[in-house]
Amino acid sequence: MNERFLKACRREAVDCTPVWFMRQAGRYMQEYQAVRKKHSILEVCKTPELAAQVTLQPIERFPLDAAIIFADILLPLEPMGIRLEFTEGEGPVIHNPVRDRAAVDHLRVVDGDELEFVAAAIRQARRALAERVPLIGFAGAPFTLASYAIEGGGSKNFLYTKQFMYREPDAWHRLMDKLARVVTAYLRRQIHAGAQAIQLFDSWVGCLSPTDYAEYVLPHVQLIFTGLQREQVPLIHFGTGTSALLRLMREAGGDVIGVDWRVNLDEAWERMGFDVAIQGNLDPVVLLAPLHEIERRVEDVLRRAAGRPGHIFNLGHGILPNTPVESVAAVVDLVHKLSQR
Amino acid sequence: MNERFLKACRREAVDCTPVWFMRQAGRYMQEYQAVRKKHSILEVCKTPELAAQVTLQPIERFPLDAAIIFADILLPLEPMGIRLEFTEGEGPVIHNPVRDRAAVDHLRVVDGDELEFVAAAIRQARRALAERVPLIGFAGAPFTLASYAIEGGGSKNFLYTKQFMYREPDAWHRLMDKLARVVTAYLRRQIHAGAQAIQLFDSWVGCLSPTDYAEYVLPHVQLIFTGLQREQVPLIHFGTGTSALLRLMREAGGDVIGVDWRVNLDEAWERMGFDVAIQGNLDPVVLLAPLHEIERRVEDVLRRAAGRPGHIFNLGHGILPNTPVESVAAVVDLVHKLSQR
Repeated sequence: MNERFLKACRREAVDCTPVWFMRQAGRYMQEYQAVRKKHSILEVCKTPELAAQVTLQPIERFPLDAAIIFADILLPLEPMGIRLEFTEGEGPVIHNPVRDRAAVDHLRVVDGDELEFVAAAIRQARRALAERVPLIGFAGAPFTLASYAIEGGGSKNFLYTKQFMYREPDAWHRLMDKLARVVTAYLRRQIHAGAQAIQLFDSWVGCLSPTDYAEYVLPHVQLIFTGLQREQVPLIHFGTGTSALLRLMREAGGDVIGVDWRVNLDEAWERMGFDVAIQGNLDPVVLLAPLHEIERRVEDVLRRAAGRPGHIFNLGHGILPNTPVESVAAVVDLVHKLSQR
Repeated sequence: MNERFLKACRREAVDCTPVWFMRQAGRYMQEYQAVRKKHSILEVCKTPELAAQVTLQPIERFPLDAAIIFADILLPLEPMGIRLEFTEGEGPVIHNPVRDRAAVDHLRVVDGDELEFVAAAIRQARRALAERVPLIGFAGAPFTLASYAIEGGGSKNFLYTKQFMYREPDAWHRLMDKLARVVTAYLRRQIHAGAQAIQLFDSWVGCLSPTDYAEYVLPHVQLIFTGLQREQVPLIHFGTGTSALLRLMREAGGDVIGVDWRVNLDEAWERMGFDVAIQGNLDPVVLLAPLHEIERRVEDVLRRAAGRPGHIFNLGHGILPNTPVESVAAVVDLVHKLSQR
């Protein structure tokens, strides 16, 4: 098997920098669009054959160093009792947002049986991958899940979420604890089903002040990472807009910290310490730029990583729908070529 | 006149920390809503009596240390040839977005005659203020103005803006140069009309990587600050999500750098150096929290400022519409009381 990605997670020497992309199975690929024409996102997630098929699409097309199971970060909310829908264009909508203590009390702490379809998809994807590249499992982190559950969907200011935090700290911590326990069980099942690494997506945690992060988020994320430590697979801790949170995120846990483009990779790494691996950090919009601009920026990220062990090349967030397939191919090749040791 | 704010801008000793709020004249005040029931935002901006009246509303109600003229950051776009409309709920909409070189070439570099109504509003507000507190003028910074002009309104990913930057760098720099020259002339007129300090709002610049900021934004912002230096009024340089851009923003210019809540005030100040003043940085959502939480967070900001000369207390962004008036009053009093030297 191509071990580059797993080695980099453990900060071991590699022949060249491994690369994979968040949302590498996505709308920018015709193969994916063909599946989505016939099936909704939730249908694809819940049908192991389809989820495995979509997971493999980018692997068949590009020499990527890791696959990531096709799923959605919000899946654990459903069995907890949250009515989730993906609307065309609008993204996820939650029909019974969690806005008070009673709603938190009603949430079920499920152990993952209800998400067995993800484990099945992982088993199928592992078989189809046939040890070519490792398979990453993932889940949303408690804050990001809570923000969708409370806001009822995506948000700009996270007004309801922060108000809930400030006004009902006890209910907040209870909600975060329930989410952390569900996420831990869910990720453990993914690992037992064959996920060879795990990424925790705290996509929107960058909206918080460092003080609020430390008080309202960190302990719950720590619970997840502590709970998964004995599973012995690399754990990636990712967020966006986290420039001032990096030290705290590292404290919360993870063998690899994922950073977005809003901070220089070398500065981010130095701030966290070089004894943790780092993943990132090209702006996804760069993939819509002309090839010479893409090349210049890939070079810049690699130059800042300075060939240190423990860098995994990725975007700072998911691939955008209108990204040219050729640009994705070009970045994979550039990363491998320019980083050869 | 209450000189606290101007002294803090110059990093001189003050009896207690000065405080004002972005969007302190806004929908959270009934007095403002009463005016807006009869007039659109653009009508208020373009009618000096109304703009001055609204500017004074928070000054009559709270012991704030500065007034800020009521206007909109996008006003300079109109005389340049951009058709601007404020829709209820949706925010600003631009009917002829700038998407190519030809559109940039068509933009007029106006010298501010067309925005004379803002100068008139400043003169009226100064008279009405009768030297109680200083009056701040302001404008949007080139990147933030360009992002609205190119996207056609607000944006989440700044897809068109960044693509324009990456694909047509010459046209981008021409656009930024035109905007910088218009903004400089416009701000100079505000100063000549009586503005005693200036704030440049680069509200959305935090979406950029530090490398892109240095290349595509910094020189144009520098042009504005250099152009205004001889006017001898304090210049405030503000953005949000700028944790990793602070050193570059300082290099671009400003006597005071405005920071939001996503970075701790002490860390931000240390990173920039204590020989520049700092403004911020309470999360506006905190004003929707219970009083004891507000107090705890105001204390935290002041503790991080550590009584150093050159701190102006503010929010990290504008006051939110559903903010209780009592919370605004409480913060002003808390800042003054807790920071007494």
